[in-house]
Amino acid sequence: MTADAYMPTREDKFSFGIWTVGWQGVDVFGGPVRPPMPADRAVRKLAELGAYGVNFHDNDVFPFEASEAERDQKIADFRRALDATGVVVTTATTNLFGHPIFKDGAFTASDRDVRRFALAKTMRNLDLAAELGARTYVFWGGREGAESGASKDIRAALSRYKEGLDLLAGYVVEQGYDLRFAIEPKPNEPRGDILLPSAGHALAFINELEHSEMVGINPEVGHEEMASLNYAHGISQALWHGKLFHIDLNGQNGPRYDQDLRFGNGNARGAFWVVDALVAGGYDGPVHFDYKPPRTEDDDGVWVSAAACMRNYLILRDKVRAFRADPEVKAALAASGVEDLMVPTLAAGETWRDVQGFTPDIETLGARGLGYEHLDQLALEHLYGVR
Amino acid sequence: MTADAYMPTREDKFSFGIWTVGWQGVDVFGGPVRPPMPADRAVRKLAELGAYGVNFHDNDVFPFEASEAERDQKIADFRRALDATGVVVTTATTNLFGHPIFKDGAFTASDRDVRRFALAKTMRNLDLAAELGARTYVFWGGREGAESGASKDIRAALSRYKEGLDLLAGYVVEQGYDLRFAIEPKPNEPRGDILLPSAGHALAFINELEHSEMVGINPEVGHEEMASLNYAHGISQALWHGKLFHIDLNGQNGPRYDQDLRFGNGNARGAFWVVDALVAGGYDGPVHFDYKPPRTEDDDGVWVSAAACMRNYLILRDKVRAFRADPEVKAALAASGVEDLMVPTLAAGETWRDVQGFTPDIETLGARGLGYEHLDQLALEHLYGVR
Amino acid sequence: MTADAYMPTREDKFSFGIWTVGWQGVDVFGGPVRPPMPADRAVRKLAELGAYGVNFHDNDVFPFEASEAERDQKIADFRRALDATGVVVTTATTNLFGHPIFKDGAFTASDRDVRRFALAKTMRNLDLAAELGARTYVFWGGREGAESGASKDIRAALSRYKEGLDLLAGYVVEQGYDLRFAIEPKPNEPRGDILLPSAGHALAFINELEHSEMVGINPEVGHEEMASLNYAHGISQALWHGKLFHIDLNGQNGPRYDQDLRFGNGNARGAFWVVDALVAGGYDGPVHFDYKPPRTEDDDGVWVSAAACMRNYLILRDKVRAFRADPEVKAALAASGVEDLMVPTLAAGETWRDVQGFTPDIETLGARGLGYEHLDQLALEHLYGVR
Amino acid sequence: MTADAYMPTREDKFSFGIWTVGWQGVDVFGGPVRPPMPADRAVRKLAELGAYGVNFHDNDVFPFEASEAERDQKIADFRRALDATGVVVTTATTNLFGHPIFKDGAFTASDRDVRRFALAKTMRNLDLAAELGARTYVFWGGREGAESGASKDIRAALSRYKEGLDLLAGYVVEQGYDLRFAIEPKPNEPRGDILLPSAGHALAFINELEHSEMVGINPEVGHEEMASLNYAHGISQALWHGKLFHIDLNGQNGPRYDQDLRFGNGNARGAFWVVDALVAGGYDGPVHFDYKPPRTEDDDGVWVSAAACMRNYLILRDKVRAFRADPEVKAALAASGVEDLMVPTLAAGETWRDVQGFTPDIETLGARGLGYEHLDQLALEHLYGVR
Repeated sequence: MTADAYMPTREDKFSFGIWTVGWQGVDVFGGPVRPPMPADRAVRKLAELGAYGVNFHDNDVFPFEASEAERDQKIADFRRALDATGVVVTTATTNLFGHPIFKDGAFTASDRDVRRFALAKTMRNLDLAAELGARTYVFWGGREGAESGASKDIRAALSRYKEGLDLLAGYVVEQGYDLRFAIEPKPNEPRGDILLPSAGHALAFINELEHSEMVGINPEVGHEEMASLNYAHGISQALWHGKLFHIDLNGQNGPRYDQDLRFGNGNARGAFWVVDALVAGGYDGPVHFDYKPPRTEDDDGVWVSAAACMRNYLILRDKVRAFRADPEVKAALAASGVEDLMVPTLAAGETWRDVQGFTPDIETLGARGLGYEHLDQLALEHLYGVR
Repeated sequence: MTADAYMPTREDKFSFGIWTVGWQGVDVFGGPVRPPMPADRAVRKLAELGAYGVNFHDNDVFPFEASEAERDQKIADFRRALDATGVVVTTATTNLFGHPIFKDGAFTASDRDVRRFALAKTMRNLDLAAELGARTYVFWGGREGAESGASKDIRAALSRYKEGLDLLAGYVVEQGYDLRFAIEPKPNEPRGDILLPSAGHALAFINELEHSEMVGINPEVGHEEMASLNYAHGISQALWHGKLFHIDLNGQNGPRYDQDLRFGNGNARGAFWVVDALVAGGYDGPVHFDYKPPRTEDDDGVWVSAAACMRNYLILRDKVRAFRADPEVKAALAASGVEDLMVPTLAAGETWRDVQGFTPDIETLGARGLGYEHLDQLALEHLYGVR
Repeated sequence: MTADAYMPTREDKFSFGIWTVGWQGVDVFGGPVRPPMPADRAVRKLAELGAYGVNFHDNDVFPFEASEAERDQKIADFRRALDATGVVVTTATTNLFGHPIFKDGAFTASDRDVRRFALAKTMRNLDLAAELGARTYVFWGGREGAESGASKDIRAALSRYKEGLDLLAGYVVEQGYDLRFAIEPKPNEPRGDILLPSAGHALAFINELEHSEMVGINPEVGHEEMASLNYAHGISQALWHGKLFHIDLNGQNGPRYDQDLRFGNGNARGAFWVVDALVAGGYDGPVHFDYKPPRTEDDDGVWVSAAACMRNYLILRDKVRAFRADPEVKAALAASGVEDLMVPTLAAGETWRDVQGFTPDIETLGARGLGYEHLDQLALEHLYGVR
Repeated sequence: MTADAYMPTREDKFSFGIWTVGWQGVDVFGGPVRPPMPADRAVRKLAELGAYGVNFHDNDVFPFEASEAERDQKIADFRRALDATGVVVTTATTNLFGHPIFKDGAFTASDRDVRRFALAKTMRNLDLAAELGARTYVFWGGREGAESGASKDIRAALSRYKEGLDLLAGYVVEQGYDLRFAIEPKPNEPRGDILLPSAGHALAFINELEHSEMVGINPEVGHEEMASLNYAHGISQALWHGKLFHIDLNGQNGPRYDQDLRFGNGNARGAFWVVDALVAGGYDGPVHFDYKPPRTEDDDGVWVSAAACMRNYLILRDKVRAFRADPEVKAALAASGVEDLMVPTLAAGETWRDVQGFTPDIETLGARGLGYEHLDQLALEHLYGVR
C-alpha cells in the first residue's frame, strides 16, 4: 500500500466546516493566534487538498453585523471560489451562539423576541443554503441549555425547540427546498448542560416533530465521547433508526473540554470502529470533519491538520476493509458466533409459545468462551498494520 | 418543621428493590460482608421503616438453581410477608445478568439458545409479577453490550433487543396482564459499553417497538450521571415524551464506577432538582430507591441507609415546595423571564411569514442580564435551609 | 440564625481575582457579553460587598501592550482604589497564557526566548506584587502542556519548570520580598494535558525545588474535580504536608470544561466538606474565589454572584461548626471509631516485633459495622439545615 | 517485520500478576465464570507464553483462611512451578482488600486492631516475598478511603499510612531484605475516594516517609486514566523524580469503572506514548501487566489475552523505535524546536539579571507555528504502520 492510496478523491465526499480551518484560536484563556480567514480562501485551499465539499454558518461567510452590500459581496466571493474549484456546499447551518443575543439560547431562549429572531436568522440562511445547493441543514443548539436548575423549564424548552423546528421544516417544505435537517447533540459546553445532550436524546426528540421524516441527526465524535459514550455504537443506533443524516468527525480524549482534535487524534482505536460502522452501515453522506487546528499551529499547520483528517480516514477505511476481508477474521467471527446475532431469536412462524419453558444446557452455555479477545486482537493488529 | 414531618407514609409510594437492602457487598475486589437476606425479611423490615412497595428480580426471591419446590416455598414466604405487612409489589424484573450463561448478554447474546432462554426466564417471571400485582416490569440490560468492537453488531443487537421486547409485550397483552414495561438505561459496567446507554437512547429505541405505547423508561440517577448527564433534565425529557414510567433514585459522584449511594449522598444539589422535576412534572409512580448500603455497614447500617433514602426525599420535597411557593422566587422567575418560555414563539394564527425578517433591538437584548444567578442562589438557600 | 450572620467581615479574609468579576464572557463559541471592567472599579465594588482582598494578573490591571505611561496610570488607579477602600492585595500572579507568544507555554515553551521573556514578565510583576503588599504569588501554568505526545519532552519540561521557579524564588529571596509561591494545578484546558495536573503532582514537584520551603500549592475546586478527585481530600493532604498556601474556591460539575461556577454551585455536598477541611485544618490564608459570572449575567448579576460566593462560604462554615458541635455527631464519631484513627497503630515504645503475628478476632472485626451511613446522614441533615 | 519479531523473551522482562489470569470473573453483578486457577498452573502457563516473571498477593497462592499446612503446601506447589519454569518472582504484594476485615481499610482502618493485623499480614508476606526473590513489594491501598466525608480524617489517615509504611520499611531494612516498596495509586473503586489517588499524590506522600529512598511508585494505566490523567506524562514525572519502581500496564476507556483491559485495548494511542516514555526514560524494571481477561473468555481466551498483552508491547516498542529513528521525525522534531527544551533557559553563568527586562520580538514569536500537528501525524502513521 503506497501513500498515494491515501489521496482524497471527490468520491470520498470529504467536507469541512469553513469555521474549522478558519478558527483563529480564541478560547477562554487567550486571544486569536491566526489572522481571519475569508471563506473563499478556505474553499480554495480545501479544494487543493482534495476536499469535495464545505459546510458553513451564515457568519462564517459574512459577519453578524454585515450590511446588505457587505453580505452580498462576501457571498459572491464565496460562490466564486466554489465555482472556481468545484467544491460543493453539502451542508449549511446558522450561527445561533456567537452573538450575545444568544447567550441564553436561540429557539429556547427565555426571551420570545430572541426566539423569533433566531427563526428569522435561520430562515434567511435556509434560503442561502438552498441557493448554494446544500442538501443538509445542521442544528447545533450549543446555547440551548442552562447552568442552573430553575433557569430553564426543560419541558417548556423542548416544546419551544419543537415549535421552532416544526416551523422551519414547514418553511422548507413550502419553499420546495431539497433540504433535510440534522440535529447535532452535545452534552455541555458552552452551557453547563445542553438540551438534547446525546445522539439518543436527539433521536427521541425527532419522533415528536411534525416533519420527523425530514429530520435526522449529525452526531460528533467528540460530543458523544465527552459523555463517555461509544460513538460507533451511537452512529450504529442512528443508522438502525434510518436517521444518520450527517456526521462530524474529529478527535477527543474522553470527558473534558471539547477538544475538536483532528480525526485520528484522540481515541485512535475508536476511530477504527467508527469507520467500520460507517462502511458496514452503508453511510453515503458527506464525510465531514468538524475539528479545530490547535493554537500551536500557523497557517501551514492548519492545512497539515486538515489534510491529515482526510488521510487518516482513508488509512482507516483501508484497514477496516482489510480486517473484514481477512479469512482469519472471518473464522474468528464465525467461531465467536457474532453472525448468529443476525438470526432472529424465533424461527419463522414461532411465537412465544415456542420458547416458553425453554431450557438449554445451562452449564455448557455458561462455560462456553466467546473468543472475543482473539477477535479483538485481530482488529488491533489491523489497526497497527502488522497483519 | 419537625422531624416527624419527614416520616414516610403510604401516599409517598416509596419502594425498594429487594436486592438493595439485600446486597451482601460482593464486589470485584472482595467477598460478602453481610449474610444473605431472605426476601421476606427485607419486606418486613422495609415495612417497618414506612416503605409502601418493593421491586424484585426473580432470583432475589429464589435462587437461579432452585427446584420447583424450593421456588414455591420462597415465593410463599415472600407473599406471606407482603400480606402481613401490606407492602405491595409495584414492580418486578428478571435477573438476566448474574449467571454465567448471561455473560454475553441475554436478549442480545450471540448465542441464540441463550436468547431463547432469556425470553423463557422473563416470561415465567412476568407470570409471577402479574400474580403478585406488579404494574411495571423493568428491563435493565446490564450484560447487553461489549468490551470490543467486532464482538457485537450493534444494529443486529438492536434488532434482537426489539424482537425480544416485542415478543414479551405481545405475551403480556395476550395474557391480559396489567403490566407496562420500563427500560433502564446504563452507559457501562459491567460491560465496557452497554446498549441503550442513556435515557435518550432508550426513548428513541422505544419508538421502534411494536407495542411502544406500553413501554417507557426507568432512568437511574447514577446511571445518567456516570455519563455526565443531568438526571433532572433526562427525566424532564422523558416526562415530555410521556414515558417516565418508573424512577430509580440513588447517589453518584460523577463518571466513575456505579456507586449506588443512598439517595441524598453524591450530587446533593442535583437531587433537589430531581425532586423538583418529579413534583412539577406530576410523576405519580413509585418513588423507587435502587441503592447499595456501603460495605462498611452491618445490618443496622443497612436500615439506617434505607430509612435515610426516604427521609431525604421528604426533606427535599419539602424544600422544593417551599422554593416554588416563595414570593421572592416567584418574583425572580418573573424577572428572569423563565415563564415566558411557556409562551409559544408564534402567536395564535401566526406562521413563518410573521417572523421572517424579524429584527428586534439586538443591542438591548444582547446586553440584557437574565438574573439566573440570583434565582439559583435562592434555590441554593432553600437547599441549605437558610430561607 | 439570621441572614445578617452571613455578612462578610475583614476577618473572613475573602478575596477575589480581578479577572473573576471582570470576565467579559469570551469563550470558544462566542464573544464578550459585558463591557471591560477596569481593575479599580472591581476593587471598589468588591469592597462594597465586603471583600477583604484581591488577587491580580499583571494584565488585569494594564494591557499586555500598555506603554509605560499607560501602565503607570492604570497601576495608580488601581492603587488609589485599594487605598480608598482598604482592600488589600493578598496575592498576585502573571498572565502567561493570554498572548499568542505563550501558546506553547511559558516556562516550558519549546522556544527559549519565550521562556526568558516569561521569566522577565514574571519578575517585573513580582516587583509590583511586592510593592502592593501581596504575600502570595500564584503560578498557574495553564499553557504548560501539550495536545500530542511528541511535542513535549515531559522530563525536560519539568526541568525547565524547576529552573524557572528556582530562578524566580532566588530573585524573591535576593530582593528580600516577603512572598511565597503557590502552584495552581490543573489537568487540562486550555491544553490537552497540562503539566502538574493535580494537587499531588504539584506537591511532588515542589520537593525538587531549590527553595521548596517557600513554595506551596493553590488548588482550585474545579480543577481537581475535573479529574474526578475529591477536593477536600486534596487540600487535607496539602495541609498534612504543610503546603496549603492558598485556595481557589468555585463550583464544578465533574469532568467537563472548566466551569468556574460561583462557590456553592456545582458540588454542593463537596463544598460542605471543603469548608470542614479548611476549618479543621486551621487554614488561615485568604479565602479566595476564582469563579466566572456566567455569560447570562449583566453587571448586576456579576455582583450578585460575587456576594453569593462569600455568603455561601459563611453559611457552610456555620453548618460545619454546628455539625462538629452536635452531641449526636460526637456520639456517632465515637461509635464509628473515627477518632481512633488519631491513635498511633503502635503504642509508645512498640516496634514491629509487637505486631508481628498479631491475630485479632477476625470474624468479629469482619462482621463489625462502622456506622458511617448514620454519621453521613447527620452531616447531610446539617447541610439541609434540618437539624 | 515478521510475527516472530513479537515473541517475548526473558530480556523483555514481562510479568503478570497471578490474580490477572486467575480472575474468575466475579463482579458486582455476577458470579464466577471460570474455575479457580491454582498459582502453580498460572506460572506454568505464563512460562509457556514467554513471561519472565510473576507478581503475587499472599492470597493468590493460599487462601486467607489456610491452615499452616495448607499454606506450606500451596507455597511448595508455587515454588515448584517457579523452579520448573525458571519464572522469577519479580514482585509481591499483600491482599489487604478481599476479606471483610479490611472493608474500612487496612493501614488506615479506623479500628486499631485491623491496622495491627494488616501490618502483621504484610510482614509475613514480606518474608515470603524475600524468600522467593522478589525485589519489589507493591502497596495498593484499594480499601484505604471513604464513601462519605466525616468517616475518615484524611490527615490522620495519612499519618497512619506513613506509620505503617515506615514500620514495614524499617522491618525490611532490619531483616536485610533486598526489597523496594512501590505504592500503587488509584482514585476510586472499590472505595468512593481512595487515599493517594494519583501518581502525583503518592510521589508527594513518599517524601514524608522515613525511608523515602526505598519507596517509589507503581502507577497503573487504567488507574490514572480513570482520573482523565495522561499516563505517559505521569510515568515521565515519576522517572524525573527517580521514582518509577514498577509499572502496571493494561487498558481503560477513560473515566468509568476499572476495566483492566489487556494492554493495547482501550487507549491505543496513549499506549504508544507509554512505551515511548518507558524506552526514552530508560525504565528497566519488570514490564508488568495487571489486567483482567473479560468474563466472555474461557480458559483459552485467558491465555490469548495474556499473550496479546506481551505481543502488543513488542509491537509498540518496535513502532516507537522506528518513530524515533525516522529521519523525517528527526527533522520535524528539530523544526518544532522540541529539543530546544533540553537547553536550559539560562546559559551557563547567567542569573536572573541576564533575563530581567528581556524583550524578544513578540510579534514574530506570537505568529510562529510550532508544527506539532505534522509531528503528531508522523507518530500516528507509525502507530498505523503506514510509514
